[in-house]
Amino acid sequence: MEPIKVGLLGFGTVGSGTFTVLRRNQEEIKRRAGRGIEVARIAVRNPAKARAALNDDALSALVTDNFEAVVDDPSIGIVAEMIGGTTIARDLVLRAIANGKHVVTANKALLAVHGTEIFEAARAKGVMVAFEAAVAGGIPIIKALREGLTANRIQYIAGIINGTTNYILSEMRERGLDFATALKGAQELGYAEADPTFDIEGVDAAHKVTIMSAIAFGVPVQFDRAYIEGISKLAAIDIKYAEDLGYRIKLLGITRRTERGIELRVHPTLIPAKRLLANVEGAMNAVVVHGDAVGSTLYYGKGAGAEPTASAVVADLVDVTRLHTADPEHRVPHLAFQPDSLSNTPILPIDEVTSGYYLRLRVADVTGVLADITRILATSGISIDALLQKESQEVDGGGETDIIIITHETLEKNVNAAIDQIEALSTVISKVTKLRMEALN
Amino acid sequence: MEPIKVGLLGFGTVGSGTFTVLRRNQEEIKRRAGRGIEVARIAVRNPAKARAALNDDALSALVTDNFEAVVDDPSIGIVAEMIGGTTIARDLVLRAIANGKHVVTANKALLAVHGTEIFEAARAKGVMVAFEAAVAGGIPIIKALREGLTANRIQYIAGIINGTTNYILSEMRERGLDFATALKGAQELGYAEADPTFDIEGVDAAHKVTIMSAIAFGVPVQFDRAYIEGISKLAAIDIKYAEDLGYRIKLLGITRRTERGIELRVHPTLIPAKRLLANVEGAMNAVVVHGDAVGSTLYYGKGAGAEPTASAVVADLVDVTRLHTADPEHRVPHLAFQPDSLSNTPILPIDEVTSGYYLRLRVADVTGVLADITRILATSGISIDALLQKESQEVDGGGETDIIIITHETLEKNVNAAIDQIEALSTVISKVTKLRMEALN
Repeated sequence: MEPIKVGLLGFGTVGSGTFTVLRRNQEEIKRRAGRGIEVARIAVRNPAKARAALNDDALSALVTDNFEAVVDDPSIGIVAEMIGGTTIARDLVLRAIANGKHVVTANKALLAVHGTEIFEAARAKGVMVAFEAAVAGGIPIIKALREGLTANRIQYIAGIINGTTNYILSEMRERGLDFATALKGAQELGYAEADPTFDIEGVDAAHKVTIMSAIAFGVPVQFDRAYIEGISKLAAIDIKYAEDLGYRIKLLGITRRTERGIELRVHPTLIPAKRLLANVEGAMNAVVVHGDAVGSTLYYGKGAGAEPTASAVVADLVDVTRLHTADPEHRVPHLAFQPDSLSNTPILPIDEVTSGYYLRLRVADVTGVLADITRILATSGISIDALLQKESQEVDGGGETDIIIITHETLEKNVNAAIDQIEALSTVISKVTKLRMEALN
Repeated sequence: MEPIKVGLLGFGTVGSGTFTVLRRNQEEIKRRAGRGIEVARIAVRNPAKARAALNDDALSALVTDNFEAVVDDPSIGIVAEMIGGTTIARDLVLRAIANGKHVVTANKALLAVHGTEIFEAARAKGVMVAFEAAVAGGIPIIKALREGLTANRIQYIAGIINGTTNYILSEMRERGLDFATALKGAQELGYAEADPTFDIEGVDAAHKVTIMSAIAFGVPVQFDRAYIEGISKLAAIDIKYAEDLGYRIKLLGITRRTERGIELRVHPTLIPAKRLLANVEGAMNAVVVHGDAVGSTLYYGKGAGAEPTASAVVADLVDVTRLHTADPEHRVPHLAFQPDSLSNTPILPIDEVTSGYYLRLRVADVTGVLADITRILATSGISIDALLQKESQEVDGGGETDIIIITHETLEKNVNAAIDQIEALSTVISKVTKLRMEALN
């Protein structure tokens, strides 16, 4: 059988990694797919640079700067979009679909924001849109969610899905660094970009958890409803205190089914140090999925980089090659659930989320301060799981101390109301630091 | 669309778990599969017992003791075999295939031993044989290997794939128990069967790693070539010494591609304590898969039990429901590789395996004993990675001590030859204890 022809859009880290893996493992991939998979055209903004990287006359002839020509080429069966962003990428993906081509994409922003439109267009044309590489790089988590755990009512997903922030948090904990120093080190080593905002502020993780949430619960992608808090304001002292209490702090993407709606949130989170997820260090990714039948499962691996991401892109190319001749009604639905049976369960605002909390307070070391604080928590219906009062320090002639409180699960708005009251106490010297906590049982 | 009708063979732990999950989550499963999945008949040896468990007149009417009648029933689309064993199960699976029915099975022994025959029969009839539940219970590891990692040349798989033995090893380490005591505790808690041989001697793990090896490397299932060593002879002292040296001992199923052939083996294995796999405790399962593009990935979850195993069985039922109308040539091949492109790469005998080794020697505490031992290792070409000499103990008026040696990677037959020479030394008091070691880089 003739090889299936792929058009690559973009030849950066992921695009060139995909090209490399497809060529290096072409025999093995063909033995699996039953058919060769061949890159027929490569569209890039800077053809000279791509040709220099390819360093081969025959291969250089594949390169063009005309993206539309690739997307419109009748010989191309699959378009692999690896440009990124939500503007040109969206136009090209929709045009490829309109041309009846299957699409493979690594673009989480595109799907988290425009997924509904893209999947609907694909359904109407009977083509596949595959996106394993959009979440957690080489870890086949989309496949696990869409196909491996179909028996389950999924209850929650909690994932370390951004390697940059996990690397920074590992460095902060292991070496006692503050955030700015750890970020600088990560930038020097290439783990963080020059403008690291998307990673450190949690936007990248929110794109990914939005996609997983849709697949897990059968709801449309709703990135604009996600609560997003990054790690740039995280203090080294909280990592230290958390560790003293038996917890580690990770930037988690969390989505959970509750009776009142779906939680969808990204924020620094305390998790018990003995959990496997707490021991995922450096730039690695890991996702915990909890289903009612299977219990907790965990998926771990490299979440970024040329070849790990290419591993996911090529797996999608093989899936499309294997299944594109199947009746569209019998393929795996894009969002795991049949498009006519998506649910309109609401995404809860952060005020309505239930969580455990870590609170750090700077207080004057005077009689009665702890009584005042615990009374406020008690009257707010918040019960205390653990409390740690540090030794008093002399500041400007008076004693000051840190109090750390771990609460049982409670509603976010209740905690916020209690914090307002606590901050109004004259004995409470600075703003209360609040972090969320997950037991991950 | 009419629901697809399933015939259950067997109604023990897995069969009744599958029935429960299918009914409880029927709405969610239908939203995913696009079609209802309905248990239409249940074949069991003891119908009265199954009817008592169902406790419902309408459901009880589904129960029969005529297995052939279920397998021959023209209304049944999928036969789910959950009897176990390799005799009756084999006959019924082959008969179901001959009748043109798709088969879902949780039976690792059947596939590890008769897989070639069964897959060939299924191919000839154009039906699917799905077996996610045969390896690592609810963890979708077969799907990850067959579909999620198709881009990769897989280099090795190392898995904790038997919960009973992992529970026993966790108890031995955490509580300092000997094997017999830990086994007894596991039996009392239901983690080990009354006759635990298949689990503790590594046979169950060998069935599972045989299946994974075939899928990873594109070779036929070859259970009779697997090297199998269980944990029943493992001494508590070796768990202790391993921990002192920074390792934990796990019963691993290992399969690795080398230049000379494929390694396929089950044995107690030292792994660095900092590896995620080393921290998988209790009855949990976890599998590390290392591919050339993706690097190391890990999959963790419950490897046994009614609902975790049912999670995998039902996922297979959904897969078959989604894909059975597709052209058979375009479905995922049973062993991940197209049947006409399986390889005849040989499985290596254990003598030809390369590994690091842990050696424990009981020696007389006399001058020169360490020099003799290290000379033998050096002349055998075995280099030492770490060496630990314990304090001397007085026994029968003379001094005795334990020496523990960790070697770098070397051929098993070289180590065995060196051990023969070491045991011939008059200063070496007892047999050398040998354990294998994996760095899992």
